[in-house]
Amino acid sequence: MKLEKIIKNACEESISESRTGDTEDEIKFIQNYLKSARKIIVPSKNAVKLNIINRVLKEFGLQKAEQLHINTNAADLNRLPALSKAIMALDQCECDLIISRGRLGVPGSGSMLVMIDKKGRILTAATSPSHVVHKKEVKDAVSGEIVHALERIGLKRIK
Amino acid sequence: MKLEKIIKNACEESISESRTGDTEDEIKFIQNYLKSARKIIVPSKNAVKLNIINRVLKEFGLQKAEQLHINTNAADLNRLPALSKAIMALDQCECDLIISRGRLGVPGSGSMLVMIDKKGRILTAATSPSHVVHKKEVKDAVSGEIVHALERIGLKRIK
Repeated sequence: MKLEKIIKNACEESISESRTGDTEDEIKFIQNYLKSARKIIVPSKNAVKLNIINRVLKEFGLQKAEQLHINTNAADLNRLPALSKAIMALDQCECDLIISRGRLGVPGSGSMLVMIDKKGRILTAATSPSHVVHKKEVKDAVSGEIVHALERIGLKRIK
Repeated sequence: MKLEKIIKNACEESISESRTGDTEDEIKFIQNYLKSARKIIVPSKNAVKLNIINRVLKEFGLQKAEQLHINTNAADLNRLPALSKAIMALDQCECDLIISRGRLGVPGSGSMLVMIDKKGRILTAATSPSHVVHKKEVKDAVSGEIVHALERIGLKRIK
């Protein structure tokens, strides 16, 4: 079943008040989408972040991501900076999946890592605290976020 | 400093490429906003969720939340169901803070708990897996999300 059909069915369930939460088939679809994504994009000028993301993707048996060198500062002028950064990348390249990391909301709201599909639909995400709160190195924070984002949709490390 | 001024400053830093991440003052503002919020709203018909949220709010020394009985099914027809549910509540009542829990993105993408201020700006959020993945009871899942959402902006349990 395609995602369009999954969304159509879920919308009909919500309208008729018969929806009881995510189904195994829906989660399986997201897992398979990630596993079969060939072109994965990370909009970031930071090679450290890309390397960490790629290390985790490899551990989960997923394709290596490519860096997209675009200026995403404007995303921070938006109410949803991390998601806006992902959408900016989506609008500037062809790809199957975008993994974007940025601010969650207002200044001080910490970071979010979000994964969107080729139409900009949110597949998974994870939040972590600001550096001021967690005091972790950026690579540890990014690693924690992407692992959480993958594990929460039922994916597991294969190595 | 008001949030409008904080956002204005952060925007100017982003535009001039001088922004280096969240500052202590920005995080402190969010902490104080939550601590001083008098009217906190939870748009949900589920009393179990409200009770868990209130237990955690009390542990963190925050004001008790009130339930807003509105039909939020339409939020699931949107790309950002949890945030849309919060905005629906914002548009239908006067309050300082809204704590909303709903689906993160597409069907299967698990849940997100999000806190927005009286203008709809995102202060903090946390994601957790779908029930199908975590198998936790809803009260444990909600409890984990709200604790994470509060701790990631540096708030601590006071009892």
